[in-house]
Amino acid sequence: MYEMTIRLQTGGNVRLYEQIYEHIKTEIRKGKLLAGERLPSTRFLADYLQVARSTVDFAYSQLQAEGYIEAKPCRGYFVCSVDELAGLGELDAPETATGRAAAGENSWTEKGKAAFEDVETGIAVEEGEQGVFSEEPIRWDFSPYDIDMTGFPFSVWKKITKNILTCANSDLFSRGEPQGDYELRVTISRYLHSSRGVNCRPEQIIVGAGNDYLLMLLEKILGRHVKIAMEDPTYLRSYRIFQSFAYDIVTVGMDGAGMRVEPLEQEKVQAAYVMPSHQFPTGVVMPIGRRLELLRWAAGAPDRYLIEDDYDSEFRFRGKPIPALQASDELGKVIYLGSFSKAIAPAIRVSFMVLPDPLLKRYRKECGFYSCTVSRIDQSILNGFIRDGYFERHLNKMRKIYRSKHDLLLDELVPFQKKFSISGENAGLHLLLTAKEPCSEKELRSKAVRRGVKVYGLSQGTGENSGRHATVLLGFGGLSPEQISEGAGRLKEAWEIEG
Amino acid sequence: MYEMTIRLQTGGNVRLYEQIYEHIKTEIRKGKLLAGERLPSTRFLADYLQVARSTVDFAYSQLQAEGYIEAKPCRGYFVCSVDELAGLGELDAPETATGRAAAGENSWTEKGKAAFEDVETGIAVEEGEQGVFSEEPIRWDFSPYDIDMTGFPFSVWKKITKNILTCANSDLFSRGEPQGDYELRVTISRYLHSSRGVNCRPEQIIVGAGNDYLLMLLEKILGRHVKIAMEDPTYLRSYRIFQSFAYDIVTVGMDGAGMRVEPLEQEKVQAAYVMPSHQFPTGVVMPIGRRLELLRWAAGAPDRYLIEDDYDSEFRFRGKPIPALQASDELGKVIYLGSFSKAIAPAIRVSFMVLPDPLLKRYRKECGFYSCTVSRIDQSILNGFIRDGYFERHLNKMRKIYRSKHDLLLDELVPFQKKFSISGENAGLHLLLTAKEPCSEKELRSKAVRRGVKVYGLSQGTGENSGRHATVLLGFGGLSPEQISEGAGRLKEAWEIEG
Repeated sequence: MYEMTIRLQTGGNVRLYEQIYEHIKTEIRKGKLLAGERLPSTRFLADYLQVARSTVDFAYSQLQAEGYIEAKPCRGYFVCSVDELAGLGELDAPETATGRAAAGENSWTEKGKAAFEDVETGIAVEEGEQGVFSEEPIRWDFSPYDIDMTGFPFSVWKKITKNILTCANSDLFSRGEPQGDYELRVTISRYLHSSRGVNCRPEQIIVGAGNDYLLMLLEKILGRHVKIAMEDPTYLRSYRIFQSFAYDIVTVGMDGAGMRVEPLEQEKVQAAYVMPSHQFPTGVVMPIGRRLELLRWAAGAPDRYLIEDDYDSEFRFRGKPIPALQASDELGKVIYLGSFSKAIAPAIRVSFMVLPDPLLKRYRKECGFYSCTVSRIDQSILNGFIRDGYFERHLNKMRKIYRSKHDLLLDELVPFQKKFSISGENAGLHLLLTAKEPCSEKELRSKAVRRGVKVYGLSQGTGENSGRHATVLLGFGGLSPEQISEGAGRLKEAWEIEG
Repeated sequence: MYEMTIRLQTGGNVRLYEQIYEHIKTEIRKGKLLAGERLPSTRFLADYLQVARSTVDFAYSQLQAEGYIEAKPCRGYFVCSVDELAGLGELDAPETATGRAAAGENSWTEKGKAAFEDVETGIAVEEGEQGVFSEEPIRWDFSPYDIDMTGFPFSVWKKITKNILTCANSDLFSRGEPQGDYELRVTISRYLHSSRGVNCRPEQIIVGAGNDYLLMLLEKILGRHVKIAMEDPTYLRSYRIFQSFAYDIVTVGMDGAGMRVEPLEQEKVQAAYVMPSHQFPTGVVMPIGRRLELLRWAAGAPDRYLIEDDYDSEFRFRGKPIPALQASDELGKVIYLGSFSKAIAPAIRVSFMVLPDPLLKRYRKECGFYSCTVSRIDQSILNGFIRDGYFERHLNKMRKIYRSKHDLLLDELVPFQKKFSISGENAGLHLLLTAKEPCSEKELRSKAVRRGVKVYGLSQGTGENSGRHATVLLGFGGLSPEQISEGAGRLKEAWEIEG
């Protein structure tokens, strides 16, 4: 164990903080602590080593100053990229400030950070990108992935949990059904029917711990050699996952109606991954005509399927709700994916997948023995939460909160319309700004970062560059109204917007 | 949704129970309800359809009598195998009692049941096996997979949960680290070090929702074309999982010391899956000599690894604890798998995998973006449970309970020694009985089932038949002391044992 091996020498001539500092530095340089790893909190380590907390603080400050580790607000300390260090031939060189400066100032630090955030959010940074960094800490993070946790109904959740955890429910601690508890599947199928128009029997639903896991399961069902179409741009986490499956990914351009259909025939793909109710990141809503075109394409061969990721359909602020693509599917061609991560909390690790009958049979045959990844206790809590109406109330409340944040951000962005066009509004938790004049996303992001604001580039990640105008994403879910206004103000300065 | 489509006609000439019966029967025969599916509980369906519970009871009884569904004690009603029905050309034939009798009495029902249990327990039934069935319900199930849930510390679990679910902990509802919360990993690494001799840093640990999931992740790390060695016999769930990966599985014979090592070289395998502390199902403990041989084999090439599944090391009743194989590994050749399913409860969906550094690097690179499958709330509860000493106390308590059941069963089995040799004692939650006279496992199981007792055959599942003597497994974890004595008494009658 990492910290076990620190043997502090008391009474010697090397100070305690220096011993801690040296030890961690050596671990990082030897590659024993890898980039992105989180260090123990200063409190924890001080307690563990029986030293004053200030001693550990001092060691960490030094490591941070030298670029070995970095602090992330509310998350702790993380190891910076070591590969970069090694690549620069620094591993055996003396670690002087000059050495670091020669290696491109602090750019590798920022890159290490970006690479790690990538893991967290699914947003990636192009290979070789440098220069989006600043001495100033990020104070306004317009992440399109963050949600508002202040609205979480703790007391209700606690009450349901308390009622469930009784001896009378000891069967809850036994192994459950592989697809998830039947009661929860009934509840989900009803919810999907009433809110999304999805038609399914509880038997078609597979409950799993997160979309990532369900996609892993889907790989076992669809097979390991699938040619899959994804929109360009698309949700990067899913892109990464299909990449890790060694799937043959065909990126298909979008028009105003979403994924174009002709390339699917031309490229002989077997599956297409789409987000028809609210495409991520563009916010495009797929009209019924295009939906039917896609369904017709899928009907053209027995092994063609559409994977519908309905990731944030709960949050629509204007107009009627958009039904799911699955609701128009009469031939069993749509694999429907949904999750409670955005609607309740990312920590509620419950997603679900609705399989059409032919795939359900294959699942039962090939994968029916995989145990369910969600504990029966968590399933019961969630079931109670939905069944007893709390979920609906929570959604109504959050929809109001997000709508007011959405409206506020739109207001703040009015002056930006001289230089940018705004899109993706009225649904979801982010907006898009597309520059009217030529400029790069990196430039926009760099200027923002220098003012302590983080925005997200549309082109980051897939390595695709379709020559589109520079577009950045501004998420508002995780920011308070004050932060939205302040952040927008800073962006105005950063991008020299008048008014 | 399945039950949505029942439209009950009131006031007509078809009774309500018949309408329910007809509807479900049709769904099964059309293949809309698949074998192994659980039906809604009678209470639930009655409530849903707004009919008396006795009406649904009556419909279910009829379906059960005709062999369409079956009742499992404490679990509910399940659909029987439909494929079998179809295979017998019954799907379009009138469903008469004669028709069913012609199809081999009720054997297909029992087979459907066995196939389903397979999914639940990992025990499979050979293709084409028939005849292990009885009119008598199973009253004593010596399942080697069941554990004693009466000892679960509900009040402690509830207390920890209550303390964790407060607004102050709202960060618990955010997305956690992909490998699992650092605090929990520290706790696990300490526990592994003190109880199993495992040497690892928290950074090497990946927390996941069950071993099945962690093996899926391991597939992504090790690659998709791996030649893997497994002991014969081995743990069937893992065998099934490697099969679903399309891994090239080499089954390797065992001697008294466990997996033989020469075939690994001969067959050019890359990984070997072993359970050195207590092999399942044989109970063999691998001595240090064989462990070192295996480690030497693994050291022979850079991409060779040993997968150590330490599934029930907590329960050893005599002698010193057996350390993990990982504890002797100095070259980073062991992938260590552990779980809290047996030690706490199967519903606690928390397992963990310790990766050696080269594989950790590969994981970070290839799979670091997969979100953790265990909710942060569950991680915190478990962390508190272990860190604050409750886990150790719970283990001590359960060890005593299991030891007394183990000793009781051994006592009850004394008269069996005329006809059987007993092995696998002193650890784990099952014993093995090997017949001294020629007879088949099926015969032993059939005779037992006729007395209402279920035992498990060693040869079931892998399709391997190494010509070994008939051996059955008797698990005692889930049975009360009274049930153990009664069950053993019934087995004496079943197998005609005197004394």
